[in-house]
This record gives sequence, structure tokens and C-alpha cells, in this order.
Amino acid sequence: MAAYAGVGELSEDGAAIADAMNAEAERIIGEVTAEHGRIVEAGLTAIDALPRPGPGPLRLLVHGPSGTLAGGQLGTALSIAIAAHHAGREIRVVVPEARPGFAGGRISCWELAAAGVAHTLVVDAAAPALVAAGEIDAILIPADRVAANGDVAATIGSCALAVAAARRRVPFYVCAPTSSMDLATATGASITIATSGAPDILRVGDVALAPPGTEVSAPADDITPAELVTGYLTGTGLRSAPFDEAAG
Amino acid sequence: MAAYAGVGELSEDGAAIADAMNAEAERIIGEVTAEHGRIVEAGLTAIDALPRPGPGPLRLLVHGPSGTLAGGQLGTALSIAIAAHHAGREIRVVVPEARPGFAGGRISCWELAAAGVAHTLVVDAAAPALVAAGEIDAILIPADRVAANGDVAATIGSCALAVAAARRRVPFYVCAPTSSMDLATATGASITIATSGAPDILRVGDVALAPPGTEVSAPADDITPAELVTGYLTGTGLRSAPFDEAAG
Repeated sequence: MAAYAGVGELSEDGAAIADAMNAEAERIIGEVTAEHGRIVEAGLTAIDALPRPGPGPLRLLVHGPSGTLAGGQLGTALSIAIAAHHAGREIRVVVPEARPGFAGGRISCWELAAAGVAHTLVVDAAAPALVAAGEIDAILIPADRVAANGDVAATIGSCALAVAAARRRVPFYVCAPTSSMDLATATGASITIATSGAPDILRVGDVALAPPGTEVSAPADDITPAELVTGYLTGTGLRSAPFDEAAG
Repeated sequence: MAAYAGVGELSEDGAAIADAMNAEAERIIGEVTAEHGRIVEAGLTAIDALPRPGPGPLRLLVHGPSGTLAGGQLGTALSIAIAAHHAGREIRVVVPEARPGFAGGRISCWELAAAGVAHTLVVDAAAPALVAAGEIDAILIPADRVAANGDVAATIGSCALAVAAARRRVPFYVCAPTSSMDLATATGASITIATSGAPDILRVGDVALAPPGTEVSAPADDITPAELVTGYLTGTGLRSAPFDEAAG
């Protein structure tokens, strides 16, 4: 006798449990989709409030995988750009390649091309330089984790963009779904940063990028201080830090 | 009858011209080597003047190929770190990979390993984050071109480092040999930035990094505003901007 019933062999109790699990999954999917929709709506409102850069498209820099493929459901930061395009706004998206995994080129550019949104791929080091040179009108990033004071753990490179943006007064928006809000953590100083795989740094395919055995530091995220964030795009609209439990 | 004499067929006049060219080449090599030596000496003095970070090595971030292999002769920024190590200073060099060509891993790490200097390779996006997190004690970069007001064209990513460094008051030194000084150019705004090859951005070896046909912007350099530079390490020692013709 099997320890667990297989599919098609569920007892009446098992079928009830499966139904309840399906219903719960549907509820979560519905909630996340609806929240992403409200984040995209808040993002569109923020974009429409930006000063026009003169002739030519609005130049949005989106750093970090955050479309439907990466974010699940509707997606967040990248989906704001895609929604703006579909809503008839003239935009161009600048996409940093997001080393070490190249998610910018591999995922974001793919999604933007599929949606017909004009976009330009750049190496990560070029992105803050474009901000410094006045060639970016706004920055959108997806948060991995937001502390109670508003410090943000996000795709490595976000902090460099925020620092460059603050110096030029370029708006820097953080997409912060409920799942990213960690209000039990006081500040970014308490957030432990995960590391990404070093192999992608020493080698891509058959191409060696450094001598074998080179010591590598490969943080996946960095911490952007709350003071550099223009606003948080959340399921309850555009918000400011710090956050308190009740509003989270 | 050949239009030009081949090697071994030089007339007496030809031999004299060859001798003169050799002498001129030797003179240039000697001058460049001596100037690099003075830049390295100025760099060592600057490093020794840095506040000690507490226990552990001094953490120097060197961005851009600038050792003997890349800079010719003695080299500049990377050679300062190597010279500091040979002079008994306890240092660790943080090396951004320098996309798109990966010169950080391929050249700088190779030279540091050969010299026995402790070093850590990071993706470019991680470098300003390390500065922001207080994990870098000083930054050294080689200039490609310095305008009269002190604006610097240098390896893409230098500007992001300078912006992050200014915010944390981390010293940011630019190695500026005579060959990089372009005092006929008033400011960085007049410097035309060369572009690097887009193929390295869409593909590394057999590995595709973005959908075929993706539009790419690939500046090789960026412009660091003079106001973010702590000092210029030159053949006449540590200097400040602006520069005038007489001192150049």
C-alpha cells in the first residue's frame, strides 16, 4: 500500500484538500495580479507627472528583471514601461544588462521586443553615466526587500543608479509589492545580501573572463538608502518611507 | 628597382634615418617610463596619506586597464597598487570586470596575480555599491583624456564610481600622464566618446546575451566631472584642476 495517494486515487478527504489548495492558489494569484495592476497604475501616474524632456521619447531606465516572466503575474517595473507604451506614451527603455546573469538582455529585452517597446541595451557601468549625463528621465526598479525605514535591497547596480539619480535629481522609483515589504527589519543594515554564482563571473560558456582561481565577490543585490528613493510604487499607490506595520 | 629599401639594404642615408628613429623611440620610451615612475611615486604618497581603515588591508579599487600590459612601460593606476604591495603596504585590490571587454578580469587580475597582490574581482555594478557601503578606502583610475577644467574621459564606469565616492568622501584619484592631457579642450562636454564593439554585448563566445538585433549603446568611456576628482596623479606629482597650458 502506497504511503501517499497518487493523482486519480484521491480519497474523498484528499479531493477536498486538493480543492482547498487550488482555491487558495487561485486566491493568491488573484491578489498578486490585482496588486501588480495597482503598482502599474501608480507607476503610470508617476510617469505622466514627469516633466517632459523636450522632443523625443521619455527615457525610462528599468534595472532588474521585473516583467511578467520574471515578476510573475502582471509584473512591476518593466510592466509599467510596457503599459505606458500600450497606453500611447512615447517612451524608450534603457536596459542595463544586469551582470552576472545578463537578465537585462536575456529577459527584459525579450519582453520589451515582444511588446513592441523601443529599447536600448547597455552594460551596467554605462547606466549611471547616462543618468549623470542627463540622458535618463526616470528610473524604475523592482525591490527584492524593503526595510521599515525604506532602505531597499534590489538588483546589484540599483544603488549606483540611485546615487547618480539623486545628484541629478532624476526621479528614482521603487516597485514594492507586499511580498517585498519586510517591516520587521528596521534598516538595510540588517538585510543579509544573497550572493550569485561566481562561475558566471569567471566564465561565460567556453570563454574565460579571468584567470582560474581568481577570488570573486558576487553579491546579487545591493542596498539603496531610503533617502535616495523618490517614491515607492505599491499596491496602495505611491508611498513614502518610513513605513509602519499598519500601512504595510 | 624597389621603391623602398628593405631591411639590410639600407643606404648610408637610410641607416642614419633608422638610427635617428631608434634614438627617438628610445627617448620617448625613457620619458614615458620616467613619467609613469613619477605618477606611481605620487600615488604611493597619496596612499600613505590615507586614513587607516582599522585592522585589515587598505582596500584600493582600481577601475580600467592600467598596469604594464595595458598602459605600456611601468603603467599607472594598477601599478600604484602593485608598487604599494612591493613596498610592504598591506593592501587588497578590488577589480571591476570592466564590461564589455572584461579587461578587469583578463588583464588586471592577471597582472595582480603575477605580482602576488591580493585582489577580488567584482561585476561593474557591484563596485559603486561597495563604495556606498564603506568597503573601499580609495579609488584609482587611469585617464584616457583630461580636459583643461579637469573633466576626465575614462573607462566606462569611472563616473559611477566618482559619484558614489563623492557621496561617501572616498578619495578618487585620476592617473593623468602627459599623453592624456588635452588642455586645448575646455571641458568634458567637448569630448567625443568612442564606442566599443556591440558584439561583446550581444554575445560572448557562443553564448547569446540578448535577442539578435537588440539595439545597443556601447560607450567605451564616460565623463567624470572635475568636481568629483580628489586629485590628479601626474608626472609633476599630485595636482588639482583646472590646468593651464604652462603647467601641462
